[in-house]
Amino acid sequence: MRTDRRTFVRTAAAAAAGILIAPGSKTYSSPIPKERGKSVFGLKTKPMDIIRVGFIGIGGRGAGHVAHALVIEGVEVKAICDLLPDRIEYVTKLCRDAGRPEPDTYGKNDYDYRNMLERNDIDIVYISTPWRWHVPMCVDTMNSGKHAFVEVPAATTLEDSWKLVDTAEKTQKNCMMLENTCYGREELMVLNMCRQGIFGELTHGEGAYIHDLRDQMLETRWEGPWRVPYHAKHNGNLYPTHGLGPIAQYMNINRGDKFDYLTSLSSPALGMAKYAKENLPPDNKYNQMKFICGDMNTSLIKTAKGRSIMIQHDTTSPRPYSRINLISGTNGTFRGYPGRVAITGRGEGTHEWQDIEQCYRDFEHPLWSRMAAEAAKYGGHGGMDFIMNWRVMYCLRNGEPLDQDVYDAAAWSAVFPLSEKSVADRSNSVDYPDFTRGRWKTNEPLGIIK
Amino acid sequence: MRTDRRTFVRTAAAAAAGILIAPGSKTYSSPIPKERGKSVFGLKTKPMDIIRVGFIGIGGRGAGHVAHALVIEGVEVKAICDLLPDRIEYVTKLCRDAGRPEPDTYGKNDYDYRNMLERNDIDIVYISTPWRWHVPMCVDTMNSGKHAFVEVPAATTLEDSWKLVDTAEKTQKNCMMLENTCYGREELMVLNMCRQGIFGELTHGEGAYIHDLRDQMLETRWEGPWRVPYHAKHNGNLYPTHGLGPIAQYMNINRGDKFDYLTSLSSPALGMAKYAKENLPPDNKYNQMKFICGDMNTSLIKTAKGRSIMIQHDTTSPRPYSRINLISGTNGTFRGYPGRVAITGRGEGTHEWQDIEQCYRDFEHPLWSRMAAEAAKYGGHGGMDFIMNWRVMYCLRNGEPLDQDVYDAAAWSAVFPLSEKSVADRSNSVDYPDFTRGRWKTNEPLGIIK
Repeated sequence: MRTDRRTFVRTAAAAAAGILIAPGSKTYSSPIPKERGKSVFGLKTKPMDIIRVGFIGIGGRGAGHVAHALVIEGVEVKAICDLLPDRIEYVTKLCRDAGRPEPDTYGKNDYDYRNMLERNDIDIVYISTPWRWHVPMCVDTMNSGKHAFVEVPAATTLEDSWKLVDTAEKTQKNCMMLENTCYGREELMVLNMCRQGIFGELTHGEGAYIHDLRDQMLETRWEGPWRVPYHAKHNGNLYPTHGLGPIAQYMNINRGDKFDYLTSLSSPALGMAKYAKENLPPDNKYNQMKFICGDMNTSLIKTAKGRSIMIQHDTTSPRPYSRINLISGTNGTFRGYPGRVAITGRGEGTHEWQDIEQCYRDFEHPLWSRMAAEAAKYGGHGGMDFIMNWRVMYCLRNGEPLDQDVYDAAAWSAVFPLSEKSVADRSNSVDYPDFTRGRWKTNEPLGIIK
Repeated sequence: MRTDRRTFVRTAAAAAAGILIAPGSKTYSSPIPKERGKSVFGLKTKPMDIIRVGFIGIGGRGAGHVAHALVIEGVEVKAICDLLPDRIEYVTKLCRDAGRPEPDTYGKNDYDYRNMLERNDIDIVYISTPWRWHVPMCVDTMNSGKHAFVEVPAATTLEDSWKLVDTAEKTQKNCMMLENTCYGREELMVLNMCRQGIFGELTHGEGAYIHDLRDQMLETRWEGPWRVPYHAKHNGNLYPTHGLGPIAQYMNINRGDKFDYLTSLSSPALGMAKYAKENLPPDNKYNQMKFICGDMNTSLIKTAKGRSIMIQHDTTSPRPYSRINLISGTNGTFRGYPGRVAITGRGEGTHEWQDIEQCYRDFEHPLWSRMAAEAAKYGGHGGMDFIMNWRVMYCLRNGEPLDQDVYDAAAWSAVFPLSEKSVADRSNSVDYPDFTRGRWKTNEPLGIIK
C-alpha cells in the first residue's frame, strides 16, 4: 500500500488546525488542537543591549520601519531583503545618509530571505511583504531562532493562524503583528481611559477599515498588483486588524475575555468593476477579472463576556477614510472620525458629544506625553508607526513582554477567513477558534502600555 | 368529538403566519401564507373632500397629531379616545382654542375605542397607544371600514405583522405606519438624491435608534411604565423603524427589492439595572426586574438584490442621539449626525466629507422647499411630523396612494421579532418573511414623494 502523502498531509494539517467542517454544519467546529510547545503569553526574553534587525520587504512600509530603526537607540540594521534592486539601493542610501554601516543585502529570488535567516548576527526580523508571504516567512524566522515582526494581517486562513501559534510555542519566540493603530495617539488615550474605568463596564465596540483604495488598480508596483486580486478570490473582511486591534485591547481580548463567535454580511461587489471599466482599457486584466468581494463587509463578534463588536471593511466605495474607533460602556462612549466623547459626570453630560481636548489633557497616554516631539519628527501615519517601533525596541531592550503577542495576531487576523465563511453561509455565525487554548481565562489583563 | 377551539385557532394562526419553527432549525421557515384578499399595493381611495379623524391615544404623541389635524385644510377632529381624563380635557381645550367644535370623547375602559369605531362619521383613525395595542386597534379600525394610521412599531411579532397585511387586503383599507423620520428634511433630500442617481448604484445603508431613554424609568405615566418592561422580556432591536424606514425607501424595499435575511447580535444588558440601582429605591419594581435586552443591538439585513443594511438599537447607553442615516453607493456616500456627503465629481472629491449646504441647494425635497415655513411653525421633531401629517391628508384628499403601506409597516417592524430570534440562536441568520407575497418583484418603485 502506498501512502498518498498529499492527502495525509492535508488531513493531518486540517485536524491539527481544528477546522474539520462537516458540509452543511452551521458553525465551524473549533476544538482546541494539541499544544506543541509552551504558551508564549507574557513571554520575556533576555534584555538585549543591541537589537540587530533584518528586514524582509522594504517597499513603502518596510523602508519606513528601517528609517525608524536608524534613529532608535540601540538598534542596528544588519540586513535587508527585497526583490527590487531600486529598493535595495534606496534603503542602503538611507543607512549611508544616517551615517550607519550599509546593511548586507538579499533578494536574488523569492527564497533568498532564508539565506538571511541563516545568519547568527540577527535578533529580530521585520516582515513587510505581500500577505501570502507573511506566514511562511514568520515560521521560517522563528524556526531560525529569531523573533518575527510582521505586517497586517498576519494570516489569512485559520490554518495559518494556528501555524503561527504553534511555531511560536514550539520555538518560544515572539511573533508580533505590527498593528500600528494600537499606538495612535487617540487609541492609546482611549486605552488609558478604559483602564481607568472612565467608560464604566465596556459593552460594545466598533472598528473599521474604510479606505478608498481603488486607485491601487492603476499601480504597476507597490501593493496594487498583489492586493487587488484578493477582491476576485474572497468575499469578506480582507483587512480587519486596523479597526479591531485597538478595540480588542480596550476589551482585554485573550486576557480575561475572548472572541466567541462571528457573523458577517457583505454588500454587492460593484465598485472595483466600475472603476476598472472607467479607468482602464477593456483588455486590461482587471476588466477581465470577476470581482466578488462585497464593497462593504460588516462583521459582528460576540465575546465570551457577552460584549459586541462591529467591524467593517470597505476599500472600494467613494467615501472618506475611517476606522470608526468606538467604545461604549455603562458610563460613557468614545467615537473617532472625528474624536468625541460623552461621559457621565464630565463636561455637559452625555446627550451631546463633547470635544476631546479636555480628555487629552486628562488622559493623554504616557508614551505620547513623553514622545510627541519624536513622533512628530519621525512620523509614520501621524507618528503611530514611530511610537510602535520605539515601543517594540524598548520592550526587547528591557526584557519586557511585547504589547501584542501571537495570540492577538492570530485572533485579530482570523476575521478574514471567518467572515468569508459566514458570508458564504447566508450569514450564519461561525465559532471563533480559541488560539489561547483556554488561557484567556487566566491570562493577566494588558497593562497600560508604558 | 369536541373541537378544541383554542388549539385550532393557534395552529391556524401559526400556519397562516407561516412561522412554523422546527426546533433547532437554523432559519425561520417563511412560506408565503395564503392570501385572504387582494393586494393593497398602490391602493387609491376615493378623494375625500373632508377627512374626518378619530384619535385613539392622545398622550404626547397623539396630541401632537391632533394639533396638526387642527391646522391642515379639510381635516376635522371628530372624536378622541384616552383613558386619562386630563388628556381628554387637554385635547378638548386644544380644539376649543383653535375655534373648532369639541370632539366627542371616549375612554371609559380599554375597549371604549370600539364604540368610537362604530360611528360612521369617521374616515381615518390615528392610533398612538402602547405597542401591544397597535395591532388589535389597527385590525378593529380596518374591520370597521376606516383607514388606520399607527405609531411605530406597527407590530412586535411576525404573526401580528401578517395580521395587519391580511386585514388590509381583506378590507381594502390603508394601514400606514406613521414613520415620521421618512419625512425629515435630511431624509427627504437624501431620497431625492437616491432617485436622481447621485450615489450611483446603492450598495449599503445604515440606520439606528440610539437614544438614551433611561430616564423613562423615572416616569409614572407617559411611555415609561409600559415601555421599560420590554427590556425585561425581549433581547433584540425593540425599535427598528426610525432608522430602517428611510433606508428602506432609499433602496425601494418591497418595490423592486426586498429584505432577504437578517442576523443580529446584542451586547450585555447592563445599563438599565445600573440606572435603577443608582436612581431608584431598592424596593422599586425596576430593582426587582431582570433586564435582558442588550444595551446595544446590531442587526444586519441582506436584500434580494444583495445590498447590506446595518441597523442598531441602543436606548440605554450614555451617548448622544443618532439615527446614523447612512447610504452608500458606487458614486458616493451620505452620512447623518451630522449630515455630510462625499460624491464623485462634486465638490472636492470623496476623500474628505463635504458640507451638505450645497446639497440642500441642489436637492432640497419639493415638500420641504414648499413647506419649510409651516414645518417650522407647527413643528414636531423639527417639522417632520407636520410634513408627514400634511402629506397623509394630501394623499387622502387627492385619492393618491400613501407613501408607506401595510407591507412597509410589516417589514420594517419585523426586525423586532427577527432580531430577537437571531440573538437567541447564536446570531445565526433568519429568513425574512416576504409580506408582499412575491409582488416586490413587480411593484413600481416609490416615486419621489411630491
